[in-house]
Formats: sequence, structure tokens, C-alpha cells
Amino acid sequence: MRILVVNPNTTASMTALIGECARASVGPGVVVDAIDPGAGPVSLESHYDEAIAVPHLLGALEREGAAYDGFVIACFGDPGLHAAREILAGPVVGIAEAAMRTVAYLCRRFSVVTTLPRVVAHTWSIARDYGVADLVGGIHACEIPVVDLETDPAAYATILAACRRALAEDRSEAIVLGCAGMADLCARLSKELDVPVVDGVAAATAEVEKLVRLGLSTSRHNEYAAPPAKQIRGRW
Amino acid sequence: MRILVVNPNTTASMTALIGECARASVGPGVVVDAIDPGAGPVSLESHYDEAIAVPHLLGALEREGAAYDGFVIACFGDPGLHAAREILAGPVVGIAEAAMRTVAYLCRRFSVVTTLPRVVAHTWSIARDYGVADLVGGIHACEIPVVDLETDPAAYATILAACRRALAEDRSEAIVLGCAGMADLCARLSKELDVPVVDGVAAATAEVEKLVRLGLSTSRHNEYAAPPAKQIRGRW
Amino acid sequence: MRILVVNPNTTASMTALIGECARASVGPGVVVDAIDPGAGPVSLESHYDEAIAVPHLLGALEREGAAYDGFVIACFGDPGLHAAREILAGPVVGIAEAAMRTVAYLCRRFSVVTTLPRVVAHTWSIARDYGVADLVGGIHACEIPVVDLETDPAAYATILAACRRALAEDRSEAIVLGCAGMADLCARLSKELDVPVVDGVAAATAEVEKLVRLGLSTSRHNEYAAPPAKQIRGRW
Amino acid sequence: MRILVVNPNTTASMTALIGECARASVGPGVVVDAIDPGAGPVSLESHYDEAIAVPHLLGALEREGAAYDGFVIACFGDPGLHAAREILAGPVVGIAEAAMRTVAYLCRRFSVVTTLPRVVAHTWSIARDYGVADLVGGIHACEIPVVDLETDPAAYATILAACRRALAEDRSEAIVLGCAGMADLCARLSKELDVPVVDGVAAATAEVEKLVRLGLSTSRHNEYAAPPAKQIRGRW
Amino acid sequence: MRILVVNPNTTASMTALIGECARASVGPGVVVDAIDPGAGPVSLESHYDEAIAVPHLLGALEREGAAYDGFVIACFGDPGLHAAREILAGPVVGIAEAAMRTVAYLCRRFSVVTTLPRVVAHTWSIARDYGVADLVGGIHACEIPVVDLETDPAAYATILAACRRALAEDRSEAIVLGCAGMADLCARLSKELDVPVVDGVAAATAEVEKLVRLGLSTSRHNEYAAPPAKQIRGRW
Amino acid sequence: MRILVVNPNTTASMTALIGECARASVGPGVVVDAIDPGAGPVSLESHYDEAIAVPHLLGALEREGAAYDGFVIACFGDPGLHAAREILAGPVVGIAEAAMRTVAYLCRRFSVVTTLPRVVAHTWSIARDYGVADLVGGIHACEIPVVDLETDPAAYATILAACRRALAEDRSEAIVLGCAGMADLCARLSKELDVPVVDGVAAATAEVEKLVRLGLSTSRHNEYAAPPAKQIRGRW
Repeated sequence: MRILVVNPNTTASMTALIGECARASVGPGVVVDAIDPGAGPVSLESHYDEAIAVPHLLGALEREGAAYDGFVIACFGDPGLHAAREILAGPVVGIAEAAMRTVAYLCRRFSVVTTLPRVVAHTWSIARDYGVADLVGGIHACEIPVVDLETDPAAYATILAACRRALAEDRSEAIVLGCAGMADLCARLSKELDVPVVDGVAAATAEVEKLVRLGLSTSRHNEYAAPPAKQIRGRW
Repeated sequence: MRILVVNPNTTASMTALIGECARASVGPGVVVDAIDPGAGPVSLESHYDEAIAVPHLLGALEREGAAYDGFVIACFGDPGLHAAREILAGPVVGIAEAAMRTVAYLCRRFSVVTTLPRVVAHTWSIARDYGVADLVGGIHACEIPVVDLETDPAAYATILAACRRALAEDRSEAIVLGCAGMADLCARLSKELDVPVVDGVAAATAEVEKLVRLGLSTSRHNEYAAPPAKQIRGRW
Repeated sequence: MRILVVNPNTTASMTALIGECARASVGPGVVVDAIDPGAGPVSLESHYDEAIAVPHLLGALEREGAAYDGFVIACFGDPGLHAAREILAGPVVGIAEAAMRTVAYLCRRFSVVTTLPRVVAHTWSIARDYGVADLVGGIHACEIPVVDLETDPAAYATILAACRRALAEDRSEAIVLGCAGMADLCARLSKELDVPVVDGVAAATAEVEKLVRLGLSTSRHNEYAAPPAKQIRGRW
Repeated sequence: MRILVVNPNTTASMTALIGECARASVGPGVVVDAIDPGAGPVSLESHYDEAIAVPHLLGALEREGAAYDGFVIACFGDPGLHAAREILAGPVVGIAEAAMRTVAYLCRRFSVVTTLPRVVAHTWSIARDYGVADLVGGIHACEIPVVDLETDPAAYATILAACRRALAEDRSEAIVLGCAGMADLCARLSKELDVPVVDGVAAATAEVEKLVRLGLSTSRHNEYAAPPAKQIRGRW
Repeated sequence: MRILVVNPNTTASMTALIGECARASVGPGVVVDAIDPGAGPVSLESHYDEAIAVPHLLGALEREGAAYDGFVIACFGDPGLHAAREILAGPVVGIAEAAMRTVAYLCRRFSVVTTLPRVVAHTWSIARDYGVADLVGGIHACEIPVVDLETDPAAYATILAACRRALAEDRSEAIVLGCAGMADLCARLSKELDVPVVDGVAAATAEVEKLVRLGLSTSRHNEYAAPPAKQIRGRW
Repeated sequence: MRILVVNPNTTASMTALIGECARASVGPGVVVDAIDPGAGPVSLESHYDEAIAVPHLLGALEREGAAYDGFVIACFGDPGLHAAREILAGPVVGIAEAAMRTVAYLCRRFSVVTTLPRVVAHTWSIARDYGVADLVGGIHACEIPVVDLETDPAAYATILAACRRALAEDRSEAIVLGCAGMADLCARLSKELDVPVVDGVAAATAEVEKLVRLGLSTSRHNEYAAPPAKQIRGRW
């Protein structure tokens, strides 16, 4: 089985980190490749960033898709998820939906710890869309931009503090990490906090492995049927 | 006051039709220009089509935006709406949100008549997002692709029949037209059906005029603040 | 086009203030008249006040309605809204629904600042009914009775403080003013707070202008059909 | 214990019927009086009818209230319910809320059978407000105006047929009768249909008895506190 | 009329207290017996405790049921409620559903005060299931285990303080007591707090009396039909 | 890794079938054992059946749990799920929650095909609890009792017909099989229907493998903390 994980931003070190975490989450015999589209924003922190990144993401999936059995979109807003399902034969899983549905097997109330305040309202909207809003105790921004997650020496301590505050204020029972760039902190945070901490990169990659093994993929009827063939002017 | 209406697809005749309907919906002294991005799919009927079209739409808005007081995105899925709000000073309104919120002033139960079955489930999702799902009696596909709306001689009759079926089956009290390409049929349908028929192009353009006159525009805090400045690799 | 704005309470100075704000919100060629029913409570701050005021409100609309194209009910609880739609040919808009649906074009999370604590739970109920509850960050009472809004010299400062507290506590992005008597404070508050502040009187009047220009009015089927003719004993 | 049941319409024969059904639903030692306000519409079938009837209803409650321990508002739209709670010391129960909450102890899915199609959408709105919408399989109009319930010789057969259709189409397990004028049909319908049939007049009267015996009444804090004292111009 | 109240735990002193409160809530001529199953946990404070207790509860109902007209399950999680409805001819009411639906007649916003933090998230889930979640201002644990309610000399003061905190923090208008073991504190708390305080034991017993008097019982169709006859291996 | 799948009913042939399907859904190196509790009903088709079965199910889990890394409860009502999480170190997954959350990665609208009409309303309730109700197009009973699934020669054809009807009536895009006893039909149905068909036994077993591999298990805080130690009278 071969799984392709796409980081929709163009920060190579983050793609590497994501690949490492994704590979650590699969069973024997599963090959995981992590790529980024080569073009687009260095991080995705706005609707604008997502909109600009998605065609490059879809282009990468179109080019590489035939060689893989399943796909992960490794950015917490799940950009391009619905479109990717329309054009790929294998199942496609976003890291936000995977994290939020996975934590629902583990507790009745969880908190999300994410990067910037500007994404909080949108994350509530995603949680409603994925049917888990009743389980969300709160969504907390740790005020660290995505690209600083790797370089800011205080990042881990800041995120840990945000998790502790979230658990106390929300009286919640588990944490979801709201950014692919936090994937490598998961085990350490879980150990220190003594609650389940769910990273979407691991959750989504393992979910794709599960779906492929079960022989399940995207329905070809209605919503996710292949896009009608049509002319696209000025195709780059 | 100057309003820019952008048709995110690249079918020039539809852009012209949209412009005409938009201009018919504003008061004296309001200039309405209708454009399309020049590049992208000839119609938007899938998540993929939307994803490909949106950067071109945003590019057009970035280029032209400074000359306008407010903006309409004239495609019923409201593609790029959140992103457009982040980058423009004036208010931005989508035709689906405008149609659905406008009809809510007129009845307690309405039906949506749209193009293809593949967009029905997504339209329910939009209706939930806009807070009107409890008012929706049903969403009906008339099985006409977007580009055939102008050329199929049976289009009007087919849409009329779909509206009649919707009103009867859903026991609803008004119709929302689920495609910008139906904008010109609105008055005629309303007369024949004897119920309010709401076209999103008119509703959104008049809504933008209303917002601009009231001095209201997008909040600059959190969700719709300007995107953080950052490097975009391979910018076309 | 002629729009009638009815203040359901009987405080003449508030009717004048409402009329001024309403007139400032329409385009050229639109005549706006503001009246109150001449009988009923001097302010509406309870379900009882509303119930007593509504027949007088409806009576005024029945007497004056034929001369107008559209109607605004200028009290934040939207009293008599459904009944008014049954008896008038033109569209009828309440200031609470107009404010709450208008702010939804501008942000993803707003706060309501209203008069007395006793209306807070009911305002939540209205927000659910209008489909915007997911966007409401909080509803805050500034503890000023309606009739004191005009006379209390500290009113503006108190409301400003309540808005600031609301924005901070709720992490919201815009304000809805929860009383017609605050209509004249809107621009000043917006400037000081640097977020959109939506006043329902302006929003509703401009919405009626929009509906009339689009040729839209209340559906005559089911919910809002004319009331069945019947005997009313002891009609005053 | 003394309970006052108010029929908000002015059809004396219906008031008598309601009184009979209400008296049959209480235990030993409970006195039930049924009145109507003497002024107002002969039946309530629109928002307008309700609005006109409510001040008379409240007036009757103000005049008679001191002599009673609890109160029933006997019209399925629960008109004036919130206002009545503000002005009365004893608990106030509406027949729609009582019927819908009572049937929730008996089944997981029920249908409402009501009078005219025009009230169907509003009844859905009430059901959502009372928190039972998930239990409602459907709301069915039997197309009989309220005042014809007593005189139309086919009324019982028509209602029975509507109940049978509702049970079959909705796969529901019980019936709620959506009009006070159907109160006397309850037992007979239940026997023929072999499912629980809940009449709101009985349910509400017995609920008031229950609340009074338990020493419970309306909270005096916030929402239902006594209305602020104020001038009411032109009080009739 | 004969009502059986079953305390699903095996603490005899609590059964006695529950019986006393239940008997105080019915009218003349109603006999109330309170029992416990004789086997099972001494208190129910976890899903595990409930699961272990329920078959004993059902066994007691099967043995004693024929002699009674209606039934109360006197534990705030309403354990075994659905199953009991399947096997008993008379109506069955749980104390949580009765308390939550009863308080909805008295206010628009209430708080629940319960025993341990571990049941808070589950109580939210129950409130959603019963359709009252929009009315819940908050759910507060007073940190007293069930069996200590009778013996801890500070219990009353601790619960009173939790109620005061709940009313202030949630700006709520009434209290629901979230444990059968608090039933005897209801009147005293209500007097000191000056808001309605609803105890589920009283509410449920009076509700059963109401249902029986109205001739209403569980629907025998679909959800609550008698369980299909079948072999049960190893029946104890 | 060792996974224990418990069939809560006592039909040995069904336990064997479940074990086979569960084993087919895991990767190399994962041992799956399937057992039933040895005591309890031969099938679970009512709340009563579930209540009687659960203590035996929990007993089996207590006896065998220490030897396993994760657990599946293989009955579509997910009986005992919350209680099992309190007493086991490893993660516990129910087949209904696993099927419903898994299908959400594959489509936007699915139908459930289950056994008897009596479980339909309860399955809607479960779907709401798991946050997927908006995705459910319909829930269809094929009118086959659980124990007849293996012996009725027409079972497959009946279920196939129910699936076809569900897809057509609900315009849905995938099927969830609503009974563990249908697990072996999954691949064949999917092939004939040409849509994803999700069996909960496979989905839950693969989900447990995923959770264990990711090092995730039930949170020990609040809701699912170990039950407080206490006396259980008459323990069998």
C-alpha cells in the first residue's frame, strides 16, 4: 500500500517533519511519501492563503495520484479536501477531520490548541461541519505563527501552557493539535499532560491506511463524482 | 457608488447576463460593472471547478478592487467568499448567502431549484452554514448543466416545472434560484408561479449597495483580518 | 418609493430619532415616514409590553399601509412582525432580524449589546430563530432602561464600555445594537471601537428599500397568507 | 387548588368544551374554571388573530388572576404565554408546550394533526422552540377551520383519516392534537388508532395541577420578572 | 392509583428518603411505594455503575410491575428508562427528564447542580437528548459523592454555595437538582435562593400521576413495543 | 497487537462470522479474538435485550481485558460502550460509531439499512449523538430479525433491495449496514450497488488497530475515569 501525504504549503522543513510523523503512524508494508506542491504560500494562515495554495495542491495530486492508494491533506483547515475527492480514485482524508473524529473515540469533551486567533472562529465552523461541535470545550490560540513553530525556542513551552489552560478552563479531557506543524510534539505533550493528545497528521495517515485496507474509497455518486469535463481557459 | 460583480466562470455571455441583472437591481447613481477573471473553467459545477477558479477570481479582485466600493461573487456556491473579504476594503457578498437571507424576510419555508444533482448535498451544507436550513423545504435539481441554461430551448420550461414540483412537494412558499445563470428568469417565473422567486445576483448586488450606503464593511478583526504577509513561491 | 417605519412604543422623541436614522439610510427618491401608534406603552421592555403594544402597531399599519411600499418595525424584539406580514401588501422587516442578518455579511462572530438583563435570554432565542446563534459570541446588557437612553448623560459611555467588554470577552469582531433607541450612536461607536457596529433601524430600512426595488414582497401562500375573514367581538 | 383555563377566542361553545375536558383531567379537590376574554376573534388561525386576541387574554388574566393558583392558555399556538408569566403569581402553561412535552414521555416519534395548512410551518417553529423537533415525524393539516370542528359532521372522520395517514407516512408512534377544539375527540381517536393521542387542554391543565402541588411557579428573575412599571398611553 | 418508585441503587436510607419525597408530591388517593432492587451498587456514579444496576432494576419492575399503574426511575441519569418502557404497561418517567421538562415551564435559563465532575459532560448529553440544552446555562458539580449527601454535615452548605455560584455565573433563573439524593433539600434551597428549585423525584412522581390520570401510557408501536420473545442463556 | 472483539449476544455462529470479518480487516501482526459473553440474549433487538446483555459483556471484558490492547463491541446499538471505556486500559470502539464516522470520509449523504422498524427511531438518535445526522439521508428497516440473517435464504436479496430503495429514495451516495450480522455481505453488496458499503465490524476493528498503533487510548479524566470503588450488593 502506498500513501501520499501532501503538505499544501511550501516550507520544505515542515514537509519533512510531516513525512516523518506520517511514516511513524502506519503498519508494516505501507509506504508513505510526503511532498509539497513546490508553488504557493510558505504557510497557510488565512482563507486567502488556502485559496492560493489549493490549485497547486490539486495539481500535485493529479500528477502523482495514479501511483498511490490513498491520500492525506496535511493542513488543519483541510483545504481542497472536497475537490481532491472528486479527482482521485483512492480515499482522501484531511488532518482536521481525522483528528476531530479520532478524539471522539477517546473522550466526551476536548479542546483544540491552534496557532493564531484569526482561525478560531473558522475552526468552530469546521467542528460544526464535522459534527463534533458538542464535544468541543474550547478552541485556544497559542499566538505562534505557523513558520515560527519550528524556530521559536519557546514554542513547546507556549503550546504546553496553552494546553494546560485549555484543559483547566474547558474542563476537557483531551487535546487536538490544530496545526500540522505541531505533529512532532504530540507524544511529549501527551506524556506531560497525562491526557490523549491527537495530532491530525498521524490520525489521517492511519485513517487512510484503514480505509484502503478495508477496500473503501470515495463514493462516485453525486457530491464526489468526477467533475464534468469542460474547457478551462488559460490553464497554467 | 461603484459595485463590481465578478462572475467566477469564463463564459462571457453569462457575464453579460449577470451584469444586466445586477444593474437592474440598484438605485440611481450606482455604477455596476460585471467582469469575469478571463481564465478558469467555463462553468463551476464541482468543488474542483471552484478550486481552480478561485485564484483567478481573487486576482481579478486584487487588480480591480481599489476602484470599487463593494463586491459581488456571482456563483451560487459563493466560491472564494471568505478569502475575498480578507483582501478587499469594501464589503463582499455571495449570491447564495444573499438569496437565502433575503428570502427569509418573505416566507417561512422555501425551496431551492438548482442545476445538477451533484450539488444538492453541498447546497444543504451551505444552507446550514448560512443558518437557514430550518426554512428549506427541499433542494431540487432540474438536471440542466450551467452552460446549457442559455442555449437549451427547453430550459425555461424545465425550470418552471421543477419550481412547480418543488412548491407542491415541499409545501413551500417561495423559490430561490440556485444558479447565477438563471438570473434573467426570475421575474417571469415569479409571475407564473405567483410566489416570490429570489435570484441571488439581484439580491447580492442590492445587498452590497445597502451595506455601502450604511457605511458598513467587513470587520478587520480576527477571521477576516488582512492575510499575514508572507512569501508565495512560484507566484504566477 | 415610500417606506413606513413604525416605532411600536409611544415615546415621540424616540420616534423622531428613529425617523432620522431611517431617512439617513435610504437612497435618492425614497420617502421615509416614521410614526408611532399613539397608544400603548412608552417603551417595550417585557413580553407584556410587546403584547399590549402590538394591536396598536397593527392598527396603525392597517390605517396607513395602503400608502406605502414597504414597512419597518422599529423595536429590537420584532413585535408583531409575523402578523404585519399577513395584512400588508409590501414587505415588512424587523430591526432585530435585519441587524442580525446584515452583520452576518461582515464577520464570523458578533456580540449584541442591549438594554436590560431581562431580555438577554429572549435575544438568544431570537438569534436561534433567525439562524445566527452560531455567530453570536455573547449578549450583553448595559443596564440602561430604554427611556433613559436619551436622557442619561452617561448612556453613551456606558454603552461604549459594554461594547468594549463584549468584544474582549467574546473575542468577537462586530457589534449589533440591541435597541432602536441606540440607533443614533452607531457611527460614533463604530469609529471609536474600530469594528462594524450595526444598528437595526438603518439595516431594516435599507433592507426594505432593497426588497421593494427588487420587486419582492411577502409570499401570500401558507404562513403569511391573509388572515381568514372572521368576526372579532368587541373590536375597539 | 383553583385553576383558570382561558380560551383566547370568543366562541362560547368552544370555551364550554375546553372547560369540560380540563375538568376531566384533574384530581379530587381541584376546581377548574374556563373562561374566554369576551372580546377578540371567534377563532385564532393566523398571527394576526393571535396578536389581536392576546391583550384581551391578558386583561382577563389580570382581572381574574388573583383568585387562582395556576393558569392554562388553551390555544395551540400558546399565544401570550410569555407575557402571562410576567404578570401572574402562579404557573402558566400553554397547551402546545404541554402536549409536546407530555408525548415525549410516551414515544420517540410523534405526528401533529392540526387544522389549516397555514399553521404547519409555524408549528414546526414551535416544536423547535420547545426542544422536541427531533421527535416530530410530521405535521399534518386536516383542512378544517377551527369553528367548523364543532359543526362539520365529517370532522371526526376527516381527523381520524389525517391521523392514520400521519402514523403511516411518518412511521410515528403517537399523535398530538394541534387545536383546543379537538380536545373532546382525544379518547375516541386513541381507542380507534391504538396509539397514545395527546390533547393539550388535558395535558396543560394536569401540568398546572402538578406544578401547583409541587409548590413550583414561574421564576421571578430576568426573563419572567414583573414588567417594569411604566406609562401606557390610551389604555382601553 | 398506585405508583412504584424504584431507586436503582441499594442504599436503603436513600430509598426511604426518595419514598418520602415522592409521597409528598402526589394528590389524594394515590399510593406511592418506593423500593430498591436489593442487588447492585450502593450508588450510581459512572456508566459502569448504571450498567450493573439496570438488570436488577428491570428485574424488580418485572416482579412488581403488575400491581402498579405507573413507574418512576429515581436516579438522575435515567438508567434503564427505555428498556423499562418496553416491558411495563403503565407509563415510566425518569427523574432527569421530568426535572428538565418541568423547569422549562418556569424559566428560560436554568442551571443544573450535580454531584461529581465526571457526570457533567454526560448531563449535557442528556440535556441535548431531552431537547432542553438551549435552556441550560451551566452544569455545576458540587464535588460530593452520592453516598456522602446524607452524612456529610457540610453537604447542604456546599450545595447551596454551588447553586448561588451557578445562578450568578450562568445568569440563570432556576435550579435543577442533579441527584435523587438531594430531593429533600429542594424546598429549603428554593426558599433561601428565591428561585424555583426542581427536584426530579417530585417532578417525576407527579408526572406519572398526571399521565395515569389522563389515561396515557407508552406507545406500543416501534421504539417501545414489547421486546421480541427470545432465548436468554444463563438467565440468573 | 491483540484486539478483542466481543459479540454481546450469545449466538455462536454470529460470533464466528464476526470474528472472521474482524480478522480480515487488520494488518500483519495483529491478533484478533472474537468471543461472546456466554450468557444473555441470543440477539439484541430492544433496549431490554441490550440492558440484559451489557453486564455479561462487561464481565467478559473484565475477565479477558488484561490480555488485549484494544476492544470492539460488535452490536450496532453500541451497548455498554461508555461503561467499557471506564474499566479498560485500551481503547474501545463500537461498530455503529465506527461505521458512521468512517462513511463520513467517503460521501456527503448515506443511508443506513438495518433489521427491524423498531430500531429506526433509536438509530436516528445514535446518529445525532455521533454528530452525523446531517449526513443521513434515511434509515431503512429490511424487516429481517437478527437471528434470521444467517438462515433466511432470501436475506441477501431482501437486504440488497432495501439498499437499492434507500439509495434511490434518499438520493444517497453510500450505505451503512446496521447490524453486525450483515458483516459478511459487505463486499458483495458494494460490488452490486457500485457505492461504498460500510460494515461496522470491519470499521471498528481497523479503528482499534489504528488507535493502538498511534498510542491513543481513552482519556482517564472526568467522563471515562475509572468508576469510583464501591460496594456492589448481591454481585453474581
